[in-house]
Amino acid sequence: MTTASATLDTLETPCLLLDETRMTRNIERLNGLMAGHGVQLRPHLKTPKSIEVARRVMTRPEGPAAVSTLQEAEQFAAAGVTDLLYAVGVAPAKLGRVLALRRQGVDLTVVVDSIDAAEAVAARAREEGAAIPALIEIDCDGHRAGVQPGHTDQLLAIARTLHAADCLRGVMTHAGESYGCRSVQAIADMAEQERAAAVGCAEAIRAAGLPCPVVSVGSTPTAHFARNLEGVTEVRAGVYVFFDLVMAGLGVCEVDDIAATVLTTVIGHQPDKGWILVDAGWMAMSRDRGTARQPVDQLYGLVCDADGKVYPDLLLAETNQEQGIIKLRAGSGAALPELPLGAKLRIVPNHACATCAQHDAYAVVRDGDRRVVAQWQRFRGW
Amino acid sequence: MTTASATLDTLETPCLLLDETRMTRNIERLNGLMAGHGVQLRPHLKTPKSIEVARRVMTRPEGPAAVSTLQEAEQFAAAGVTDLLYAVGVAPAKLGRVLALRRQGVDLTVVVDSIDAAEAVAARAREEGAAIPALIEIDCDGHRAGVQPGHTDQLLAIARTLHAADCLRGVMTHAGESYGCRSVQAIADMAEQERAAAVGCAEAIRAAGLPCPVVSVGSTPTAHFARNLEGVTEVRAGVYVFFDLVMAGLGVCEVDDIAATVLTTVIGHQPDKGWILVDAGWMAMSRDRGTARQPVDQLYGLVCDADGKVYPDLLLAETNQEQGIIKLRAGSGAALPELPLGAKLRIVPNHACATCAQHDAYAVVRDGDRRVVAQWQRFRGW
Repeated sequence: MTTASATLDTLETPCLLLDETRMTRNIERLNGLMAGHGVQLRPHLKTPKSIEVARRVMTRPEGPAAVSTLQEAEQFAAAGVTDLLYAVGVAPAKLGRVLALRRQGVDLTVVVDSIDAAEAVAARAREEGAAIPALIEIDCDGHRAGVQPGHTDQLLAIARTLHAADCLRGVMTHAGESYGCRSVQAIADMAEQERAAAVGCAEAIRAAGLPCPVVSVGSTPTAHFARNLEGVTEVRAGVYVFFDLVMAGLGVCEVDDIAATVLTTVIGHQPDKGWILVDAGWMAMSRDRGTARQPVDQLYGLVCDADGKVYPDLLLAETNQEQGIIKLRAGSGAALPELPLGAKLRIVPNHACATCAQHDAYAVVRDGDRRVVAQWQRFRGW
Repeated sequence: MTTASATLDTLETPCLLLDETRMTRNIERLNGLMAGHGVQLRPHLKTPKSIEVARRVMTRPEGPAAVSTLQEAEQFAAAGVTDLLYAVGVAPAKLGRVLALRRQGVDLTVVVDSIDAAEAVAARAREEGAAIPALIEIDCDGHRAGVQPGHTDQLLAIARTLHAADCLRGVMTHAGESYGCRSVQAIADMAEQERAAAVGCAEAIRAAGLPCPVVSVGSTPTAHFARNLEGVTEVRAGVYVFFDLVMAGLGVCEVDDIAATVLTTVIGHQPDKGWILVDAGWMAMSRDRGTARQPVDQLYGLVCDADGKVYPDLLLAETNQEQGIIKLRAGSGAALPELPLGAKLRIVPNHACATCAQHDAYAVVRDGDRRVVAQWQRFRGW
């Protein structure tokens, strides 16, 4: 039933919906911001994992784009994308697949953040007689991987190791801590911290007489509120394509910008408790509870009618594998809407990357239209 | 590389491993307990979602078995399973697929818990001239769906509605609250509460002169610690096949019984912080944090060496989409093991149903053997 002749009324549930109108608006917004900065956007395709979405997100069919797995790199390469960054520290055992893609003409760049990893990349490049371009990851905010800014000896040792095998392409960083910011001002400050860390490391590499053509930064929040991107050559962002409740809670978007939702059906009630049971459990939503760390906890998601209009204070409060329990927000004065058995609803998710990953396809709709205009496949795996 | 000629050393990571030795032991344990009670087990196949695992879990190729989606029902029916319970309240729009399976000779039973749902089932059965056998769900613990025990008028109204269309097959309940128990004694008490609710409702239906041949109860914890199953005709359980850290935390199994783990590779370090970075993030583990509600929080999972030996107090503490951060448990006196770039580890998950759902196949291994003896496909979707 999830075909182009379906409508919101005939789709089987649970079903992942993608509002193309909203998605296009989100894409145009960030493209406009990047054009204002005069900086290239490298969209991260780990959120959509779909050829059809990728074609709409990228400004050119060949890229640039970023990926989080070699499965993504291989799928997008097969669809004609030739400028790819594998934006997760590369395990040495994965270099064979990296080289196979490079031999096919894909300019795939890898990421390293240690001498050990740089040596593994350099050794393999020498063995194969083929450069494996690498960015050095910088830890701009203590969030995850990367060389600490100021650890210049370590940075230069990695840079020299890569350069000796013709593998040094630049630096990259990701301000993951921006997801914990509490204001647009704090996000803008984090964007500057991200920029300064990457540009500072690039300058240290250049001061040592080594090349550093690429300075890559980005996260969806910092990409939207950066005041200054001087010295940055590209910005990466992923979840902005769909947005989600975490991004709305941060003030990066409005709830009405969120393009990915889950269509569900009422399967029962517990009237004494004010519960409405639906067929969207954690299998359809994921277990992601990103808004639990925000001032307003949206539990497993905001409930809308089938057309996408948000019900005041109505939340997907609990999930089992294939069942969800809808309740009013604690303390709310709103009335529980009458939603009979079989009624269709949409759930707005905490985290688009996690919720979309639970589904094999997008049923594509447009704002204000009940028809499904397309079905776009997703892929997964590693 | 995920083939039958692979070993733990050559598998690409992240990769879902299934220890067949442990799985077989888990299956035999519950089969033995049920034989002792003289009660039929109806294994819930929502955990494995695999034909190969299903064949090993069921005592006969034709079932019985339970499923959580019609996709599962269709897949297992195509593999020859003919006795199936769709154990989630059925949405009226799904009855067409239920009927299609029944016409193919599959004895598929549905679940209802309201007059509205019973009327929808009865009306469709009359329209089609074909019974749709249904169990009435009983809410034995306030956890989810179901008629409250003691609401006999409502129970009998549903039973009569179903019976008038020849659709009344019995009652079912699920003690989901058993996951919150803090002792084996409390689980045993919950098992008795589950049994008493279902048997009491069955007796009320029979006292009204209506048939109630099936009395179906179960959850993995209550199935293992029930003292008495008098009046129960079948027990359902799912996660026992693999077990997980939530079940170990409840005392239903030992960590060494857990059959499903995720193989991962070290991709970096933050030595100043005592962090080890791996390529298993939430995409490979799921966002499930079931042990967060238990006395011992295992964060995103316990870390083992590639052969499955648990490291003391070493946890997958944080996850990004494709990266995990391993740390020692807070306050631990254990030493951080030396795990170089490229080292392989296994992560024991919180919740097997959620973690396995992130993968398309099981790489099957046996206790103490590094060879992959088989690859068993999983399916998903609705």
